[in-house]
Amino acid sequence: MEEFVRQGIDVRILHEVTAVDLDNRLVTVQRVGEGTVVQEPFDHLLLATGNRPLVPDLPGIDASGVFGVGTLAEGERLSRFLETQHVRRAVVVGAGYVGLEMAEALHRRGLAVTLVGRSREVMSTLDPEMGTKVSEAVRRAGIELRLGEEMVGLETSGADEAHRVTAVVTTEGVIPADVVVLGLGVRPRSELGQAAGLKLGARGSIKVDSRMRTSAEGVWAAGDCAESFHLVSRRPVWASLATVANKTGRVAGANIAGHEQSFPGILGTAITKIEHTEIARTGLQARDLPSLGIDYAAVQIDSITRSRYYPGVAPMSVRLLGEKGTGRLLGGQIVGGEGSAKRIDTVVTALQAGMTLDQVVDLDLSYAPPFAPVWEPVLVAARELMKLL
Amino acid sequence: MEEFVRQGIDVRILHEVTAVDLDNRLVTVQRVGEGTVVQEPFDHLLLATGNRPLVPDLPGIDASGVFGVGTLAEGERLSRFLETQHVRRAVVVGAGYVGLEMAEALHRRGLAVTLVGRSREVMSTLDPEMGTKVSEAVRRAGIELRLGEEMVGLETSGADEAHRVTAVVTTEGVIPADVVVLGLGVRPRSELGQAAGLKLGARGSIKVDSRMRTSAEGVWAAGDCAESFHLVSRRPVWASLATVANKTGRVAGANIAGHEQSFPGILGTAITKIEHTEIARTGLQARDLPSLGIDYAAVQIDSITRSRYYPGVAPMSVRLLGEKGTGRLLGGQIVGGEGSAKRIDTVVTALQAGMTLDQVVDLDLSYAPPFAPVWEPVLVAARELMKLL
Repeated sequence: MEEFVRQGIDVRILHEVTAVDLDNRLVTVQRVGEGTVVQEPFDHLLLATGNRPLVPDLPGIDASGVFGVGTLAEGERLSRFLETQHVRRAVVVGAGYVGLEMAEALHRRGLAVTLVGRSREVMSTLDPEMGTKVSEAVRRAGIELRLGEEMVGLETSGADEAHRVTAVVTTEGVIPADVVVLGLGVRPRSELGQAAGLKLGARGSIKVDSRMRTSAEGVWAAGDCAESFHLVSRRPVWASLATVANKTGRVAGANIAGHEQSFPGILGTAITKIEHTEIARTGLQARDLPSLGIDYAAVQIDSITRSRYYPGVAPMSVRLLGEKGTGRLLGGQIVGGEGSAKRIDTVVTALQAGMTLDQVVDLDLSYAPPFAPVWEPVLVAARELMKLL
Repeated sequence: MEEFVRQGIDVRILHEVTAVDLDNRLVTVQRVGEGTVVQEPFDHLLLATGNRPLVPDLPGIDASGVFGVGTLAEGERLSRFLETQHVRRAVVVGAGYVGLEMAEALHRRGLAVTLVGRSREVMSTLDPEMGTKVSEAVRRAGIELRLGEEMVGLETSGADEAHRVTAVVTTEGVIPADVVVLGLGVRPRSELGQAAGLKLGARGSIKVDSRMRTSAEGVWAAGDCAESFHLVSRRPVWASLATVANKTGRVAGANIAGHEQSFPGILGTAITKIEHTEIARTGLQARDLPSLGIDYAAVQIDSITRSRYYPGVAPMSVRLLGEKGTGRLLGGQIVGGEGSAKRIDTVVTALQAGMTLDQVVDLDLSYAPPFAPVWEPVLVAARELMKLL
């Protein structure tokens, strides 16, 4: 706050903008929890309304002991609950990044954790052939994994204030639970922009151009509420990622301030870890390709993170996808031990440069026994894939 | 050996080729330690004669207790010496990759180690502004570092068999030593090719084209004896690196077997570590640029390896060089804690793609708290450098 004040920025926390009047260049602002409403004029308006976690409308979803983790406050609320209540069994619903990280964190706190996912494998942003390696890592960590299963309701005990979750009901059965954490994904929070008449784009996000301009003059959007552009498919997409939010915010701010900056787009790069298994992905994956009309091949190689003889060496798998005919790299996925995840940045850079697989094969990537085998696994995968394109 | 036999390859170890007769397509082969000489005909000849460590012709250089570490056998000889002799003080001469790694290894064995280097900082393949960070890491590790100092001789005791090193004499003084390890760099072992009449190239290496053909029909060279091509300077260079040796050997073999493969060249990528400090470099460095007529700017930023709050976070510095006018990336150097070194592969890929700094800034590199701050330090450096080009 002090930093904003020092910079002469009028910050109003606990104020909600309830409407945007584009014709009269006014926003309606309501102090949270109070009736007072004021109207504020604007020359430029930036919408950075973020995302909203998906909370299915199911019986028992509002019971005590059911948590989302979309905000810091929600995280703190969950933490207090775990500290003050007698909690033994946790069920995490949703097997993406948030679900995995929450399952690991709860398991570390000593709870018996069940992770419930709808897909065939955890992490559906990976091809299932790589997802299965993450599913294995989840099970190795001591987390019970139930896949191909969907939550359809929650069982509760007590009523009113004492209304408390006791189990998650799925398409396959009933899982007892003292606490339930939802990690079912997020959607853009674009209602304010939509009500003002702004055009919406991919998955209901606010449509923007590469300078983060919306469809209305002088109105900008950035962060998780705004649309993105996929650099490999060359199509609009929506992504909710911290890096993209930071970058688009910066670009919008620069443009509003009269500079000329643009944000070319994204690859959907993401990394995470569960215990000692690192997970990374970027670009297009197999399920994206049929609808794009791209004829592709994929290879997956099992290699190691360091020289065979070097202490701490661990398995690492690399999967690459490439386009038949053109030889163009389309995407990559990596799952493995320490040192695996950040290797995706090589794939990111090659993708963004529009490299073909035979160019990737020639990359002078770094080698030393503590860090890589002499044939860097990303290059080995590229060489194998080249043969299929 | 068995694998070669299985593949029907006639392997002759302990045989030295002493001459090549290009006109008559014959090599002269002598069994090591024996007088017998035979002549073998060839259709194709591959020279893979490797490199030779530099051993200065100084008084005392052949005393007992003075070791090079160019071969596995030499390493084993040193190891046996340390196990069987009373050794307390080690002096390592040369502060490049080999010198640093040997100094660390000897220090770990409990010896008092002094590292002597000629340059202003260790690792002259880094710009001195980054080298100084490695020098600090060496000192922090408990190794005595003497820089700007050159070995001019060795003191010894005894005579003949008992002739044993007791000190290294430098331009600055006398350093007592029970064991001396030389890490003064290597040169291409190209004498055999030169004597046969092959053209030599950069630093006396055997001149080859991108298919690893020498100047003589049907004669090929690969590995540390062969010349390379620098992908940024677009000039012939010589590099002695395991990855390059592996790759050029493969390309030469494929071409000899009738396939058509080529090796485009190198960036001089290299990584190493000392204790917990990781070191990486690729592309051109400041000292290369004046003679190439390249007008450049450099930036160096101090950042961190992970999110500020994540356990194990460590400092990391990134230095990037770019060309004024064109905005082209020229090279990069990274020194920092765990997870620093392999980040150089992003710079490698950007360099090899011929990216400009404004393209690097837009890379959708990976982020998660265990692996990176939300603004990846390589991108921060690129953004700063862009302003100067």
